[in-house]
Amino acid sequence: MKGYVFHGPGHASWQEVPDPGIKDPTDVIVRVDAVTICGTDLHILKGDVPEVRPGTVLGHEAVGEIVETGSDVRTVRPGDRVLVSCITACGRCAYCRKAMYGQCRGGGGWILGHLIDGTQAEYVRVPHADLSVHALPNTLASEDAVLLADIFPTAYEVGVLNGRVRPGDTVAVVGAGPIGLAAITTARLFAPERIVAVDLAAARLEAARQLGADAVADAGEGPEQLIADLTDGLGADVVIEAVGVPESFEMCTRMVRPGGHVANVGVHGKPVTLHLEDLWIKNVTITTGLVDTHSTPTLLRMAAAGRLPTSALVTHTFPLDSMQEAYDVFARAADTGALKVVLGEQRHDAVAVPEA
Amino acid sequence: MKGYVFHGPGHASWQEVPDPGIKDPTDVIVRVDAVTICGTDLHILKGDVPEVRPGTVLGHEAVGEIVETGSDVRTVRPGDRVLVSCITACGRCAYCRKAMYGQCRGGGGWILGHLIDGTQAEYVRVPHADLSVHALPNTLASEDAVLLADIFPTAYEVGVLNGRVRPGDTVAVVGAGPIGLAAITTARLFAPERIVAVDLAAARLEAARQLGADAVADAGEGPEQLIADLTDGLGADVVIEAVGVPESFEMCTRMVRPGGHVANVGVHGKPVTLHLEDLWIKNVTITTGLVDTHSTPTLLRMAAAGRLPTSALVTHTFPLDSMQEAYDVFARAADTGALKVVLGEQRHDAVAVPEA
Repeated sequence: MKGYVFHGPGHASWQEVPDPGIKDPTDVIVRVDAVTICGTDLHILKGDVPEVRPGTVLGHEAVGEIVETGSDVRTVRPGDRVLVSCITACGRCAYCRKAMYGQCRGGGGWILGHLIDGTQAEYVRVPHADLSVHALPNTLASEDAVLLADIFPTAYEVGVLNGRVRPGDTVAVVGAGPIGLAAITTARLFAPERIVAVDLAAARLEAARQLGADAVADAGEGPEQLIADLTDGLGADVVIEAVGVPESFEMCTRMVRPGGHVANVGVHGKPVTLHLEDLWIKNVTITTGLVDTHSTPTLLRMAAAGRLPTSALVTHTFPLDSMQEAYDVFARAADTGALKVVLGEQRHDAVAVPEA
Repeated sequence: MKGYVFHGPGHASWQEVPDPGIKDPTDVIVRVDAVTICGTDLHILKGDVPEVRPGTVLGHEAVGEIVETGSDVRTVRPGDRVLVSCITACGRCAYCRKAMYGQCRGGGGWILGHLIDGTQAEYVRVPHADLSVHALPNTLASEDAVLLADIFPTAYEVGVLNGRVRPGDTVAVVGAGPIGLAAITTARLFAPERIVAVDLAAARLEAARQLGADAVADAGEGPEQLIADLTDGLGADVVIEAVGVPESFEMCTRMVRPGGHVANVGVHGKPVTLHLEDLWIKNVTITTGLVDTHSTPTLLRMAAAGRLPTSALVTHTFPLDSMQEAYDVFARAADTGALKVVLGEQRHDAVAVPEA
């Protein structure tokens, strides 16, 4: 089969690789129908995630069809259409028992396209399948569903839930890429007073407005002042970092009000400066996190009911073997206007619509 | 009267100052019977708290007797023996309404010995008295009560409650000075599996053991390894920073397990390095805070019932006019073994003991 193989920082290629096979009785093999590229994949290519070994097939998000199951798999069978979650979970360890699947100590966590071969390929082996794939309703198109493999649960759990967005809050979202836009979409579920999107790209700020941001600010023009002006000088109740560079994190800590929350979602490759000489007295809470995906079943129900505008984030689609072109378009988002790019064969294009 | 006046970094003196008088109808004047010196006062003298203007009387902790009340004061009257809380609260602003008195926007917060003259004097004016002093039961000695002005509520709220210590947790307390020791004492209320105290001073580690630490570790000898060994390599559930220098904060972030909490209590004068390149994926929660003192009434009841070993932290007592000597002893704690020093006239030495 073919897959997109990492060859060290700055290098990867769509190439022939061995077909995956069942290794453990809890594995499944999924034929990939739809896959996307994550900002984290770009961080890997930058060298920010040094655990990824050269030779690894990248990708941790997919929708596809089960083609083979190990003997211990109970919840899915060949022919089922499933979401492959970015998080794999053994379900048995102390962390899984607390629904902290992202920190699974039993061989799960974020492993796809990180510690083992991932989803940017024609087929993928998914370990611990019972807790790591989700059967999909026919009413949910692959292009929508694939955004629930990572970015929607990540933005929701690590941004909105960790940040404890509540009714009446002022929420600042720094970074209006796919994660930031998904954070805006899911923050709205908690009826904040206002959401302010911050980015350098005018096109992304426009997308943020369309998805529900009440105000937008150019990251290069002192957005802290806009936040201060909107909040009697106090700052935002919740600030969500959705970029992953020191400058944006530090901006977030200047925007938060006393008693507020900074929820870091960005993948960071460098240390940041934390100005505790200002912050020690401000009762701020800073959270970090890899998604646990405990919210994925809920988000899938909402998406199937039309309550999450997932596909609004999809700007480009490609056939699977145009992976390199898709990466180029996604990496040059400032020029191409790319938000999420989805690749695949669209085998399930004919989505069954329930009768009225 | 006399008071201890800050004259800029490195300089302060016990000297004649004007008697305080009622300025606002919500003020009281308190004759100081017992006062203590806080690690924060040392941070002020180091120059870490630049808002403190030269000429300010230091101190934000006291027990004393009300000698005069403004016309709007309702809850205390002359002759009442009271605790002067480190936090003054208007009770009316948006933060006070959420019990976040430390962040009071109505002229309160931490103002004593910070923005206005403080308690290290013969008399002190306390604004917003109704929510800023607490009437004391006769059964509680001044030497015990004065530790509830700041260090016990600070250690409890900013360390133990913000850190969300729970039954069965491994808790690391970095810094076994008075705040760290008070954190150990109050963390025990939540039945953690073990408390590990970390400090450079053997005498403080011994004090930590006596107050309930289950293990101790020399901060200079890689205490991270001890924590790892005790926790299957995972790290502590809760790490409480009770020092206030970059090295100790950074040590805390190396000791915390995935999903754990770092509760910063220390007063910092410099930025720290936050290793988000390691922490972004670990689901950690970092909190900072000035105490709100919402717990002070509860802690007073517990102390009066003999359920908090407050005076175990008092190593030295002085008359009030030995302020400079007391500062010297407190600042040279490594040599003198000082934990908390209490100064005062012991007017209420004859504590009424309830009959059996």
